[in-house]
Amino acid sequence: MAHQVPSLENLIDQLERLPSIGRKSATRLAFHLLRAPAEEAKAFVDAIVQARDSIRECAVCCNLAEEEQCPVCTDPERDRTVLCVVEDPQDVGAFERTREYRGLYHVLHGTISPMEGIGPDKLRIRELLYRVANEDIREVIMGTNPTVEGEATAVYIAKLLKPFGVSVTRLAYGIPVGGDLEYADEITLRRSLENRNEL
Amino acid sequence: MAHQVPSLENLIDQLERLPSIGRKSATRLAFHLLRAPAEEAKAFVDAIVQARDSIRECAVCCNLAEEEQCPVCTDPERDRTVLCVVEDPQDVGAFERTREYRGLYHVLHGTISPMEGIGPDKLRIRELLYRVANEDIREVIMGTNPTVEGEATAVYIAKLLKPFGVSVTRLAYGIPVGGDLEYADEITLRRSLENRNEL
Repeated sequence: MAHQVPSLENLIDQLERLPSIGRKSATRLAFHLLRAPAEEAKAFVDAIVQARDSIRECAVCCNLAEEEQCPVCTDPERDRTVLCVVEDPQDVGAFERTREYRGLYHVLHGTISPMEGIGPDKLRIRELLYRVANEDIREVIMGTNPTVEGEATAVYIAKLLKPFGVSVTRLAYGIPVGGDLEYADEITLRRSLENRNEL
Repeated sequence: MAHQVPSLENLIDQLERLPSIGRKSATRLAFHLLRAPAEEAKAFVDAIVQARDSIRECAVCCNLAEEEQCPVCTDPERDRTVLCVVEDPQDVGAFERTREYRGLYHVLHGTISPMEGIGPDKLRIRELLYRVANEDIREVIMGTNPTVEGEATAVYIAKLLKPFGVSVTRLAYGIPVGGDLEYADEITLRRSLENRNEL
């Protein structure tokens, strides 16, 4: 009834299914997409189709890739003795933006979450063990999120890695840079006290 | 560098061009579109293409339509003696949601805005004059936005309509229902005082 144009209603419905897009945003986006010049709309649609067609998982680290292997795995400059294990491809981006980490990655594509029926077999853990067994890896950094699931997954994987004799480390907990102590939660503050460094 | 997958970067860039979508939202949407089931992604892309292909302007009121005329113009139940002039197709939806208005519409597709180089000739004003001259219209309600541009456009059109002898009205200004007087701006409050009604 609202607009009474079925294909417009359908477009709004489709946009509303996207994460964190409500009815009003969906309507605004739909009108934008309708009014955009033809070449702009084509570029938008093509970007979705092309990304879905060309992106697959890197055969080594399970990160997103357009080739057999991702650009990090094929980069000869990277330190091949260190692996950072992350939950999602987005997390690789976060580490890359630090411009500090020079090792390789391993993307799990999720965390162990019994509540959501995600067991270890649904993650790329087998692929990780295969790498640790066959590559010359000395350290595995558990770069999962500081959540209950991320923590549990890190502990689970650390146990599995023990027999291989590699060093398994975890990201440091502490107060975020630029944050305000007043608003830090107690657990974070306690961890930041425990892990205090000499000045 | 961030993700190093060109087609993913391209998809994020395209999403970022949408109104009120920042880099972080665009990244989240891109990953959602990548991970969605194939049929869901296809439905999304098809919705854009189909809406663009099938939607045009109603030959009578210039609202969006899939046929020669929009559903409001072809509805025999509507009062054909009253026209509500609105800026955009979205505004038709707003009036329809009131379930109160039973007349027809006329969509200008913008407002007169010298700052943005939009003169009266860029709007569907000629089409409006043609309707008022040829249809049996008794009242034209100026339903443009309560902004400087909307106001100026309403006044401009009202002058043009004068020779046709139709009644030209304007939406009432006042305090919004459910609003808080404390936060009402002075101009709105002054208008609401001027237009006060007997209880």
